[in-house]
Amino acid sequence: MGKPTELQNLKGFRDFLPPEMKIRRYVQSIFEDVFSSFGFEPLETPSIEYAETLMGKYGEEADKLIYQFQDYGKRGVALPYDLTVPTAKVLAMYQNEIQLPFKRYQMQRIWRAEKPQKGRYREVLQCDIDTFGISNMLADAEIIAVIYTTLTRLDIPNFKIRINSRPALLKMLSKLEIAKDKWPTTLQILDKIDRKTAREVKEELEDSGFSEKESKEIIEEWKGLSPKKNDPELVTLERHLNDLEIPSEAYQFDPTLVRGLDYYTGTIFETMVTEPDFGSVTGGGRYDNLVEQLGGPDIPAVGTTLGLDRICEIIKKLNLLKDKIEPNVQILLTVFESDLIRKTVQTAKTLRNSGIKVELYLRPETDLREQLAYASRKDIPYVAIIGPEEAKKEKITLKNMKSGEQALLTLQEAAEKLAK
Amino acid sequence: MGKPTELQNLKGFRDFLPPEMKIRRYVQSIFEDVFSSFGFEPLETPSIEYAETLMGKYGEEADKLIYQFQDYGKRGVALPYDLTVPTAKVLAMYQNEIQLPFKRYQMQRIWRAEKPQKGRYREVLQCDIDTFGISNMLADAEIIAVIYTTLTRLDIPNFKIRINSRPALLKMLSKLEIAKDKWPTTLQILDKIDRKTAREVKEELEDSGFSEKESKEIIEEWKGLSPKKNDPELVTLERHLNDLEIPSEAYQFDPTLVRGLDYYTGTIFETMVTEPDFGSVTGGGRYDNLVEQLGGPDIPAVGTTLGLDRICEIIKKLNLLKDKIEPNVQILLTVFESDLIRKTVQTAKTLRNSGIKVELYLRPETDLREQLAYASRKDIPYVAIIGPEEAKKEKITLKNMKSGEQALLTLQEAAEKLAK
Repeated sequence: MGKPTELQNLKGFRDFLPPEMKIRRYVQSIFEDVFSSFGFEPLETPSIEYAETLMGKYGEEADKLIYQFQDYGKRGVALPYDLTVPTAKVLAMYQNEIQLPFKRYQMQRIWRAEKPQKGRYREVLQCDIDTFGISNMLADAEIIAVIYTTLTRLDIPNFKIRINSRPALLKMLSKLEIAKDKWPTTLQILDKIDRKTAREVKEELEDSGFSEKESKEIIEEWKGLSPKKNDPELVTLERHLNDLEIPSEAYQFDPTLVRGLDYYTGTIFETMVTEPDFGSVTGGGRYDNLVEQLGGPDIPAVGTTLGLDRICEIIKKLNLLKDKIEPNVQILLTVFESDLIRKTVQTAKTLRNSGIKVELYLRPETDLREQLAYASRKDIPYVAIIGPEEAKKEKITLKNMKSGEQALLTLQEAAEKLAK
Repeated sequence: MGKPTELQNLKGFRDFLPPEMKIRRYVQSIFEDVFSSFGFEPLETPSIEYAETLMGKYGEEADKLIYQFQDYGKRGVALPYDLTVPTAKVLAMYQNEIQLPFKRYQMQRIWRAEKPQKGRYREVLQCDIDTFGISNMLADAEIIAVIYTTLTRLDIPNFKIRINSRPALLKMLSKLEIAKDKWPTTLQILDKIDRKTAREVKEELEDSGFSEKESKEIIEEWKGLSPKKNDPELVTLERHLNDLEIPSEAYQFDPTLVRGLDYYTGTIFETMVTEPDFGSVTGGGRYDNLVEQLGGPDIPAVGTTLGLDRICEIIKKLNLLKDKIEPNVQILLTVFESDLIRKTVQTAKTLRNSGIKVELYLRPETDLREQLAYASRKDIPYVAIIGPEEAKKEKITLKNMKSGEQALLTLQEAAEKLAK
């Protein structure tokens, strides 16, 4: 049992201590609540799979980021890089159990051996919702409604869901008479329009072989293009969003939205939080061919990722939780002295019997001030002091940790006060 | 993008489809609810650590079961084998942030490359609660109270918390005048008393060097020994359990409880579910030296593991959930025909505005019978049919999926009925 000289985490990996965990658990609980209220059901898959199940799905670049190794049985195994490939596996393996449409949410850790940098992690709790087996726009509208409802429930301010579609992008490229062989590069460059200056984008276009004039025109004209005019499906989508009463300020059809991955086949969408600028908090779209390419059956799909880390960061920075998380424990019973342990334990039980959530301070020989500090560190709103006087009168001194007020009350009076 | 010929899971790894997940999420939610109501707070640690953080903590046998490999940076890394070692790391790393007493719960996957067999998995969701920094019996009693409260909330029948202690075991060994060098082997053999026949245990004792007479005496006398008489701390523990109103039928002081691992220093406890015999569902105890041995600071600790898999198995076998899980969705809106999509989507929104959880069936061209089958597969209690007649009258036909009753109602009437 050697004691390491220096304990540390691997770069890109994090411990979550209780204060951080409470925010994360709160956000996850809202996620689950909204997802399931729309009929999405939970799914979980293993964190170690046969390497061949996971590798070669998104190209060489992604493969380089997959954690893989040989297990003790000399099997090549790997850790999930996303949740879409494992779900494709599930759709392939359980075709008798799973009937379509299949709406699932999945919140699990994934691992990517990316260069660690600020705000980029190698271990992430990925949160995905996807609908499998539906090719019409009702499914796309529903995913967007889930995003809108979730972010609204979390009080995320100033978010805008940008919507575009792959067919619209292709139509717009051909309208500007860009040669087909230049489409992939052009889209890659245009994808940066909202992160780079117009000049930088123009330079990149020139480097890729457009003349100065062409580059200028592409940039000028692109922003004026209308996704809806170029993809009638987006008109249907907009009608569904209207019928679902998603306010029109919450989304916009944006010709400059490209999204990096090229497996999308239909709608693409991404949510930006601006003022202050937090970047994107969701990303997704329709990928009708991917499930089959990933080893699953040939079924259409649409879904989104919600960025838990980014959302938690916003909540902390903007102090959005305030008093929204109910305290887990309503009252801490301090222990005045060793002789009063029994009385205090019995009081804990009596209050618990009245439905009150009670924590008992466990170290009787501790200074009362330290016990109060413990309560405020854990955000416990009330504290009870049970000294010899209180014990004799069968009462407790109830102290409100916020206002500092205290009162001598019977247990029943205290329970009634706490129940409010 | 190759399509694997045959998709499968590694042995000892599982997918959890929605019906199974719902039970698991329910049990986890009760765990979290009870743990936090006693003041335990959530903690999470990475699923990949430096190998040296995890290896060499529980001896060579355990090390052989740890998944380890080299990452892309040629660092030796490993996946957690339990949650105690990562918590010891956290206690060592964050001594300024974490103040004692520290009560944490942790529910995370761990991995052990054990021989897969029925009911044994290589990937397990480990659920632990532990109290760090308290050496008196209040902490031990509280852990037992949490076990009792959790299993009671889950309606687990016929469980018994067996309690013993390491000091009591050692005292009992010396009372029977067993030579000190034979203590470890003797305890190992006695540990099997409730799983093997008396004759098998006797034979094992003989094989370990006791005479036939000695072996017989040990077995006969051992069961008659009293842990409480041999460890006064257990008397204190019992008093706390009484004060906490844990019914005396729920636990027993049992001289034959040994527990395999030898890192326990004080109380040990384990919960058995009998009639039907499901074996043990919790295991834990006090381990005052372990945190330091694992690389953490020198602090006392007591805690338990709750076996999520075993508990879910009991719940399924005994059908304990019945109607306890509230349906996530109260009503499925079927889509009668494509022309009525708009009406149906608008109806979904109106009902949602009244606080009803509504799922919209997403494939309008589907036979109504199939839509109803979808609702019953997902346990959705009500279904709405909105045909041309209903649309004209601004009403819906509300069908109770259990009773088969149906009624033509306005949206407000339907919302009122569903709100009940």
